[in-house]
Amino acid sequence: MAKKEISQAVIQRLPRYYRYLGDLMDQGVERISSNELSKRMKLTASQIRQDLNNFGGFGQQGYGYNIKNLHDEIAKILNIDEEHNMIIIGAGHLGQALANYTNFRKRGFIIKAIFDKDPAVIGKHIGDTEVFPMERIDEIIRTYDVKLAAVCIPKAPAVKVVEQLIADGVVGIWNFAHVDLEVPSNVVIENVHLSESLMRLSYRVGEIYRDKK
Amino acid sequence: MAKKEISQAVIQRLPRYYRYLGDLMDQGVERISSNELSKRMKLTASQIRQDLNNFGGFGQQGYGYNIKNLHDEIAKILNIDEEHNMIIIGAGHLGQALANYTNFRKRGFIIKAIFDKDPAVIGKHIGDTEVFPMERIDEIIRTYDVKLAAVCIPKAPAVKVVEQLIADGVVGIWNFAHVDLEVPSNVVIENVHLSESLMRLSYRVGEIYRDKK
Repeated sequence: MAKKEISQAVIQRLPRYYRYLGDLMDQGVERISSNELSKRMKLTASQIRQDLNNFGGFGQQGYGYNIKNLHDEIAKILNIDEEHNMIIIGAGHLGQALANYTNFRKRGFIIKAIFDKDPAVIGKHIGDTEVFPMERIDEIIRTYDVKLAAVCIPKAPAVKVVEQLIADGVVGIWNFAHVDLEVPSNVVIENVHLSESLMRLSYRVGEIYRDKK
Repeated sequence: MAKKEISQAVIQRLPRYYRYLGDLMDQGVERISSNELSKRMKLTASQIRQDLNNFGGFGQQGYGYNIKNLHDEIAKILNIDEEHNMIIIGAGHLGQALANYTNFRKRGFIIKAIFDKDPAVIGKHIGDTEVFPMERIDEIIRTYDVKLAAVCIPKAPAVKVVEQLIADGVVGIWNFAHVDLEVPSNVVIENVHLSESLMRLSYRVGEIYRDKK
């Protein structure tokens, strides 16, 4: 099969397909038609067929999609068919929430360490790992060949720490700090700006009341 | 000034403008040109002028933008110029992280209560509030006229709790549960699916390696 370019819009939707297919597998369902999947996902059946055709068209006329095959194929595309070692910077509530999130491990994201500068939390066990002092970042990244880091510290220290992470070989930054980090072109950033998400909700709530007037 | 329709793309960018303008105010800056703002935000100056013209064009030729005016105006549009009472469902790590997040209060989101079914955490003080039993949701929503709720519980109980929240008058759901909730048209949902965000990061990290091959 020739490798096709997959559009960004499809990539945006892929994790959602992956979640729905995973839920269906958990329910013991083996096949699903594009019509049935479209009802569940509130997409048109033709949109689904178009999206899934990107991955070789696993649907068979009259039989529907083999859920496990499709789930596996999407996992490959999302690069989650193999394990990734990951670290978390910051053992505040958010860092601890991420470390305790068993879903990540299920999807192959193995959290090797959490780092914090606060002596009161260093040594604490969280989820399957523990809190290490910031001084050990370099060593642990190298030991476990860590490529992914979640950054859960305030924006001022985040900028410097991210430089260090990149120098140590991290190529994917999951950024929860409220700052737009500048990174070289061979490093990717996925931002989760919670305040901005809450403001968008607030805007849309405001819209409801404006519409009523 | 006649009220103009503002595009969704501009709305998406507004919280980011708000953040940059807030940072500038914190630094004591009073005015900024669109050129200078464009350098900081990595947008073109013409994009910035176009976006900000939506709100009455506060820029003056040769003087630039009055940062405080613009910040206030964006706050109005985002519906954060007045306070909003908010509750959090679930006092796990994520719920606690949100409750402890002082930035929300600064922006007028006042967390009135956190709810949990676990007797071990009920009564615990978190941030400026405390953990109440789920049975008190109705009463507290009515007492404080709560319109916003953050949902930080697993997907199975989330569906039922959200129905209750809506029946009680909540119109904005900030959903962290890994499920697409169905809500009436006069209720808005803002989803934060952390697993999906992490998968998008993983996909893009995979792209880096593919590009190298």
